[in-house]
Amino acid sequence: MTTPLTLTPEQPLVPGWATGTITLGCDYNPEQWDESVWHDDIALMRELGVDLVAINIFGWAQLQPQPGPFDFSRLDRILSMLHEAGIRVNLGTGTSSPPPWLARVHPETLPQFANGTLAWPGGRQAWCPSSVVFRQKAIELVTAMAERYGNHPAVAVWHVSNELGCHNALCYCDASARAFRTWLRARYGTLDALNSAWGTAFWSQRYGTWDDVLPPRATRSAGNPAQLLDFKRFSSDELLDYYRAEAAVLREHSSVPVTTNLMVTAHIQTLDYFSWAPELDFIANDHYLDHRLADPLAELAFSADLTRGLAAGQPWMVMETSTSAVSWQPVNHAKREGELLRTVLGHVARGADSICFFQWRASRSGAEKFHSALLPHSGTAGQGWAQSVELSSVLDRLNPVVGSRVHARAALVFSWEAWWAAEGDSHPSSLLRYLPEAHRYHRALRALGITVDMVAPGTDLTSYDLVVVPTLYTVTDAASVAIADAAAAGATVLITPFTGIVDERDTVIAGGYPGAFRELLGLTIDEFRPLAAEATVSLSSGAHGSIWTDAVRVTDAEIVASYSDGPAAASPAITRRPVGSGTAWYVSTVLDDDSLLRLARDLAADAGVPIVEVGYDVDVVTRQTDTHHITFIINHRSEPIAVPYAGLDLVSGETVTDATPLPAGAVRVVISERSDRGA
Amino acid sequence: MTTPLTLTPEQPLVPGWATGTITLGCDYNPEQWDESVWHDDIALMRELGVDLVAINIFGWAQLQPQPGPFDFSRLDRILSMLHEAGIRVNLGTGTSSPPPWLARVHPETLPQFANGTLAWPGGRQAWCPSSVVFRQKAIELVTAMAERYGNHPAVAVWHVSNELGCHNALCYCDASARAFRTWLRARYGTLDALNSAWGTAFWSQRYGTWDDVLPPRATRSAGNPAQLLDFKRFSSDELLDYYRAEAAVLREHSSVPVTTNLMVTAHIQTLDYFSWAPELDFIANDHYLDHRLADPLAELAFSADLTRGLAAGQPWMVMETSTSAVSWQPVNHAKREGELLRTVLGHVARGADSICFFQWRASRSGAEKFHSALLPHSGTAGQGWAQSVELSSVLDRLNPVVGSRVHARAALVFSWEAWWAAEGDSHPSSLLRYLPEAHRYHRALRALGITVDMVAPGTDLTSYDLVVVPTLYTVTDAASVAIADAAAAGATVLITPFTGIVDERDTVIAGGYPGAFRELLGLTIDEFRPLAAEATVSLSSGAHGSIWTDAVRVTDAEIVASYSDGPAAASPAITRRPVGSGTAWYVSTVLDDDSLLRLARDLAADAGVPIVEVGYDVDVVTRQTDTHHITFIINHRSEPIAVPYAGLDLVSGETVTDATPLPAGAVRVVISERSDRGA
Amino acid sequence: MTTPLTLTPEQPLVPGWATGTITLGCDYNPEQWDESVWHDDIALMRELGVDLVAINIFGWAQLQPQPGPFDFSRLDRILSMLHEAGIRVNLGTGTSSPPPWLARVHPETLPQFANGTLAWPGGRQAWCPSSVVFRQKAIELVTAMAERYGNHPAVAVWHVSNELGCHNALCYCDASARAFRTWLRARYGTLDALNSAWGTAFWSQRYGTWDDVLPPRATRSAGNPAQLLDFKRFSSDELLDYYRAEAAVLREHSSVPVTTNLMVTAHIQTLDYFSWAPELDFIANDHYLDHRLADPLAELAFSADLTRGLAAGQPWMVMETSTSAVSWQPVNHAKREGELLRTVLGHVARGADSICFFQWRASRSGAEKFHSALLPHSGTAGQGWAQSVELSSVLDRLNPVVGSRVHARAALVFSWEAWWAAEGDSHPSSLLRYLPEAHRYHRALRALGITVDMVAPGTDLTSYDLVVVPTLYTVTDAASVAIADAAAAGATVLITPFTGIVDERDTVIAGGYPGAFRELLGLTIDEFRPLAAEATVSLSSGAHGSIWTDAVRVTDAEIVASYSDGPAAASPAITRRPVGSGTAWYVSTVLDDDSLLRLARDLAADAGVPIVEVGYDVDVVTRQTDTHHITFIINHRSEPIAVPYAGLDLVSGETVTDATPLPAGAVRVVISERSDRGA
Repeated sequence: MTTPLTLTPEQPLVPGWATGTITLGCDYNPEQWDESVWHDDIALMRELGVDLVAINIFGWAQLQPQPGPFDFSRLDRILSMLHEAGIRVNLGTGTSSPPPWLARVHPETLPQFANGTLAWPGGRQAWCPSSVVFRQKAIELVTAMAERYGNHPAVAVWHVSNELGCHNALCYCDASARAFRTWLRARYGTLDALNSAWGTAFWSQRYGTWDDVLPPRATRSAGNPAQLLDFKRFSSDELLDYYRAEAAVLREHSSVPVTTNLMVTAHIQTLDYFSWAPELDFIANDHYLDHRLADPLAELAFSADLTRGLAAGQPWMVMETSTSAVSWQPVNHAKREGELLRTVLGHVARGADSICFFQWRASRSGAEKFHSALLPHSGTAGQGWAQSVELSSVLDRLNPVVGSRVHARAALVFSWEAWWAAEGDSHPSSLLRYLPEAHRYHRALRALGITVDMVAPGTDLTSYDLVVVPTLYTVTDAASVAIADAAAAGATVLITPFTGIVDERDTVIAGGYPGAFRELLGLTIDEFRPLAAEATVSLSSGAHGSIWTDAVRVTDAEIVASYSDGPAAASPAITRRPVGSGTAWYVSTVLDDDSLLRLARDLAADAGVPIVEVGYDVDVVTRQTDTHHITFIINHRSEPIAVPYAGLDLVSGETVTDATPLPAGAVRVVISERSDRGA
Repeated sequence: MTTPLTLTPEQPLVPGWATGTITLGCDYNPEQWDESVWHDDIALMRELGVDLVAINIFGWAQLQPQPGPFDFSRLDRILSMLHEAGIRVNLGTGTSSPPPWLARVHPETLPQFANGTLAWPGGRQAWCPSSVVFRQKAIELVTAMAERYGNHPAVAVWHVSNELGCHNALCYCDASARAFRTWLRARYGTLDALNSAWGTAFWSQRYGTWDDVLPPRATRSAGNPAQLLDFKRFSSDELLDYYRAEAAVLREHSSVPVTTNLMVTAHIQTLDYFSWAPELDFIANDHYLDHRLADPLAELAFSADLTRGLAAGQPWMVMETSTSAVSWQPVNHAKREGELLRTVLGHVARGADSICFFQWRASRSGAEKFHSALLPHSGTAGQGWAQSVELSSVLDRLNPVVGSRVHARAALVFSWEAWWAAEGDSHPSSLLRYLPEAHRYHRALRALGITVDMVAPGTDLTSYDLVVVPTLYTVTDAASVAIADAAAAGATVLITPFTGIVDERDTVIAGGYPGAFRELLGLTIDEFRPLAAEATVSLSSGAHGSIWTDAVRVTDAEIVASYSDGPAAASPAITRRPVGSGTAWYVSTVLDDDSLLRLARDLAADAGVPIVEVGYDVDVVTRQTDTHHITFIINHRSEPIAVPYAGLDLVSGETVTDATPLPAGAVRVVISERSDRGA
Repeated sequence: MTTPLTLTPEQPLVPGWATGTITLGCDYNPEQWDESVWHDDIALMRELGVDLVAINIFGWAQLQPQPGPFDFSRLDRILSMLHEAGIRVNLGTGTSSPPPWLARVHPETLPQFANGTLAWPGGRQAWCPSSVVFRQKAIELVTAMAERYGNHPAVAVWHVSNELGCHNALCYCDASARAFRTWLRARYGTLDALNSAWGTAFWSQRYGTWDDVLPPRATRSAGNPAQLLDFKRFSSDELLDYYRAEAAVLREHSSVPVTTNLMVTAHIQTLDYFSWAPELDFIANDHYLDHRLADPLAELAFSADLTRGLAAGQPWMVMETSTSAVSWQPVNHAKREGELLRTVLGHVARGADSICFFQWRASRSGAEKFHSALLPHSGTAGQGWAQSVELSSVLDRLNPVVGSRVHARAALVFSWEAWWAAEGDSHPSSLLRYLPEAHRYHRALRALGITVDMVAPGTDLTSYDLVVVPTLYTVTDAASVAIADAAAAGATVLITPFTGIVDERDTVIAGGYPGAFRELLGLTIDEFRPLAAEATVSLSSGAHGSIWTDAVRVTDAEIVASYSDGPAAASPAITRRPVGSGTAWYVSTVLDDDSLLRLARDLAADAGVPIVEVGYDVDVVTRQTDTHHITFIINHRSEPIAVPYAGLDLVSGETVTDATPLPAGAVRVVISERSDRGA
């Protein structure tokens, strides 16, 4: 069916791209198939409505199977075929994994673990990000690609490398050591400044020359935490610098947008994507459900909101996701009935305007042959293909969504640096983990129908009504000022344990914890009082906590709840301080689900943010244009739910009212004119 | 007592060996003892009835403590002493562990782990199977041994090395890399064929020259599964080639049979013994109860049946087992009262005609000093020696068993290649393990008194009534044809999850799973639907499964049971298809014990195979001669059982009827004339 | 308050030191602070009553930031300032961690793991104990230190290195290999003796030259246990030799006592402190509560008794402990209310006359910045400082304690060698652990108010009434004779499982276990019968055991209890044999808490040792002078207890009677005249 509405999208994903269509795309690896298969594939792509195909992602070894000239003949042919079929190409530079000969001819390009052992070919990304030789060889390929295809009419996007840093972000070899020193010189200027920042007076670690400085290789005791933190910063920057080098070549020869596929997901920690985002012409993310987590769907929502944060609210692309199971988890769960649609709409609801899959046709060989695909091993006969066709049909009906924006009244301050620093060794408790803490707050707000923007520390927060700051262990002055300003400007600000403890050098801010927020919160923590692994504490409010408590001295705050037991018994547990026209809350423990939900309701009330009590297994997110609201309701439950959104459901084509229940497992995308138009 | 029966054994273990006696043997390490002890030992061996003694298993360092000539003087003396005492010798070539000087003079002989670290002397088998230097030094020793002792009258068997591959099967050093390339050239002929077989189009792994090819060293991501599989094949072949080299020298100088001790046991996976078996003059196995498993006694039965499979039904030898505890498990359980006899008869029941122990006299030093022995640390005064004496006496009474054969109507298709391939990374579920799956079916059939032959894929199966094919993930055409032929010829064939998925190159057989058996089973699997670690599913039959389910589309089969819940709810779970005069069943989950036992009963009924409901802790196995049946009944339970076998009990010397209960923990070996004689 | 009593201490901790005062001290790291902070620190130290400050522990990199001359200027200044303030200095030689340049200029000084990988700078102790270069550089520093400060009036103690062997005790590099060979030559004289001691006849390990001998580097199978044991002996001796080298320099230039801080604690196993103790001018220990253990307070008591054992009953020093949390455990628990005082008095009760803390002022950077300190991050405003002040005040009131002695009627034979040897691989059960077994017996005796001396094997035991010998797996003749002599002289001796099994070469003592104590105990163990991980057994006495049982044949002993079930059912479990005027008991299982407490009561009755039933969470220990008893009662419980000690409580200044309950969490130090004076 066709929607009766015609909306003018505010802006397409990429300037110049056709608008009004949610892109359906996929990775395609023609190297793995006889050319005879290519024709069938392209015909089926057209049948399915695929309009963006990523190729050459792992093309290097085919283009250059031995040192010497490149052979582009097969790549030429597939590009022509796709172009003739009217399918746009997301063209990989092909540098993500070098051919085996590189390790033979230049073994110094192999990455090295902290314990000195090498990572060999056989998998992927067996290269050191600081290798001068690797970069030279890769740039030769990128230059040849850019020169040959920079103006090819099929090419719609440049796709730099692939999932940069997925495996090789941290390398400890001598080349990395040299690059690390260069980076440190740029950061600190003098060796004295480095010695001061790293606290090398401790444990006799003072450097006498720059040449003494090494990556944090294996040690017999705890390492230097500031060295470890700077090495993570360096490693993120080093790959970003590599990205920049490829992008510069491409931009020299081509006007097509350049990007790469980020991995905003729970198991990738090594890259600070907030520093990457400005370098990408648009934000593209790879996301797969991670069944190693307790709530994979909550993580999807978290990832999508964070990706939108990287895109600064602009539309973004899912550059890889799966139709069903992946192949790299201990148990690779197939998607349940309807789950493909629900998860895809989960991304679209939170700002994605483009959905691409890894991959088109399931491989018959290699480490991902059991990864699901648009065209699975059972071909077009089985359930898999039928699902792909159904998805394409639903996406067509959602075209009015394209270009609309998500508007959130709540923000969560997220920081890769804090993630790195908070999870260092030698902390009060190894049980307090950064990402789970951020996940918990995001999940509670989602259960109340509150959409959250994810923002970098230091971002202006004064436009938000509710600001959550989970375990922001390390802070800059700018970050703490922005948080205090939000409260002063009227926001309800919540700060959670182990926040504002150290500055950017991992140096404790003196005078009592949390040094950066003592004044804002009106309290001092004399001592951390972490809990044993299975222990819980009770609060005077009836709430329960685990993992962490503090001995809090309130200097200027209301005590919302105190500890009834545990090592911090009688100490305040949750506090609230009026600040300007807002408030600053502190919670000093890890609340259980029910307690956290209750706190979230209190915070929302304090902030004046409306809630919809949908619970954990439902997504409710509204995208909006100048004229319309488009509300996505995704029911992951096995029973029907009631949801108060009336209007035209783009999925079913039917008009729904507040009284129309949403069946078990169903989705609805309700479009309605904005009542607040012009407001 | 002496049995009143005189039987003519069909064939002794080794042509030319004295028949009519179950050999009682042991390892003996005279190097560890003063020569004064040797006299006592030999006297006690005679007292116990030991008639085969393995020596020089770890003799190299004594024969050649420094580079240079060998000193055989002590070996000469012990050989003479044993010969004079009428004890036959199982003579080790002594090459299993080189002397320490080899690592000093030739450190390149040390084996290397996948991460590049070396394995050093201090344990055993610190040598690379592909080391040219190691082989040269070892063959010098073997040649000297063969020349000196090839016609020595004491020598009854040549014992090549020892437990080959127990620790060093997989080596990743440069010498191994060269040997691997040689093996691959022989297998594939051209680099294009290799690239195609390994699917190197995936992840840019295409080789441009043979020199690019490496063993599957440590990688940062999942490795290439076909490379990993071929490396396991290579590693098995490489050690087999080493065995052949030693055997060739021995056969040049001696007419005594040549063999080596295999390790058919749950924790040794690296050698494909089906390819080794033809090279051994008779099959010898080392077996120890493995208390890390849930049911060590079921594993013993499995191992013994598999060893008989390697022997192609011929008698075989237990070359090592223990009188009581071993010393290499986390907890080394002593054998319970009577367990020594029960376990020994477990081997004899399933075809062993020779029982040897590691070792004669318990060591006082070294890594196995707490390993039990025929003559324990407490000497002849304690319970240990008394048990040894009792065992010898029982074995004497079992002489009529010698040379008789086990006849089975059921077969289980077992494959080391499938084991290697099925347990690779990047599969739908890491919870589905090959060996436990095979164990489960064997154990259920044993609980019904059904004796099982273990056969290699591709073996003619048309003589069997019941054929079980557990998780034969990788199959050749020959293997799938043999299985289909069995059904056509009248057998009941059962296929279990993840069978027939890939060909021998680990390449998915296209068109829907299980590619190799879609037609035979009359169904297509659209998608695997594995279960989370603790999850279970219910079947319409009341059965329960775990670990795995499939989304099955039946095209031409009866649905025996469907899933009532779980991710494959409503899909067929167990199917049955009449094929020729037989049937082909599929079960798509891992059934729990009770459900599996019920299925096994249904299969036996379908196949017309009679059952005896003895349960899990009882062995019932019949060996037969042309004229007699000899049924072993081993009651591992702590209560008496009733068993319907009447005749003369060779153990007690008494005649038993169906009404004579078998006491708790007792054994019985009932001999009776065949009623089916000549049938 | 001032105590009305004036006692003459028998002897101060160090000859020449001022007596009558319990020293309050701390580590201080002025390198980490601006000199402006030093003045504040010293003023606060005086305010708190700190009278011993350890400095220059990690000073090397500041003294010598590059190869070349030392710069002592800052060290000169802080020494002068401390001296002027009347604070004595515990002067570190500063060699514990070399500056980063040493690894750059001499990478061969880095220690090597068993698998060949290196440990790098970034942590601490990144040096090989056998490195000739490291020792040369370190001794240059020590010499300069000794020359400069050997007669400095502030210096009260020389503190050699720091926590020697905490991380780097075991090194497997080539330099370590050479040193190991030298050590072995000294121990064994001939290669034949080495081959015999190590049982190299096993597994072809016979050495032909000394150069063949290596440290026990990574192997693919179990290693040689005697080699592993000797390597641990060597490693302890090698660091002791290093200590001696530093001490020799210091003693040449200075008359101040020389010591180093031992780590008598559950997680440090590598140094045989009984061999170290004679080399230290007084014994100093570092001790922190280890919350990874089930009962950290019981371990504190164990450690303190063992430290007193090292001091041969003389007073000793706690050179490091914490005011609250540490930073190197998975969860670093803050001390509960009053726990600082209770734990400090736990040390003093058991003989410490000096209490020093790591550290004075909490670091702001580095791996220990979250370690608690006398002056915490919150400064003098918070609870932490208040606690420090209170502690100092209590210690002042305990001055009469100084120099008094603990007198124990029970002894526990403790041995680092047995710890090393008992926990080797390839033993009957990996579940039987040495230290937990020793802890269990110590804890049971402590729960009965019985104070225990910890003595080395071979020590004369005839003065004790009760002697416990837990899992003394390896014994010398001297050790077994001393134990037998104790029984003959009237003591009740208890021997526990796996004791007396091997000699000092890890060679089984022949003839039935336990070879060293068969005669003393009047029994032979035919076989070990260890239990599965979760299994328990019942004894005829109603007791319960786990982990271990034996098949015991009694030859001359009373059977106190037998096994009712389990693999040793019907075998004796606990036996008792009258020996001379004493008795020798054997218990062959690991008793649960209640059963062990009952056994301990029986043993105490047998031995005539009085008990006080205080339970697990109370310390009762008496120190005595010629004239007085001073009884420490420490109530770790959350309820009051009654304790039968009347006299003056030094803590409260009040006189207490048997009827005065001790409140929850409180401590009491009761001084009274000895009624047994002159007895």
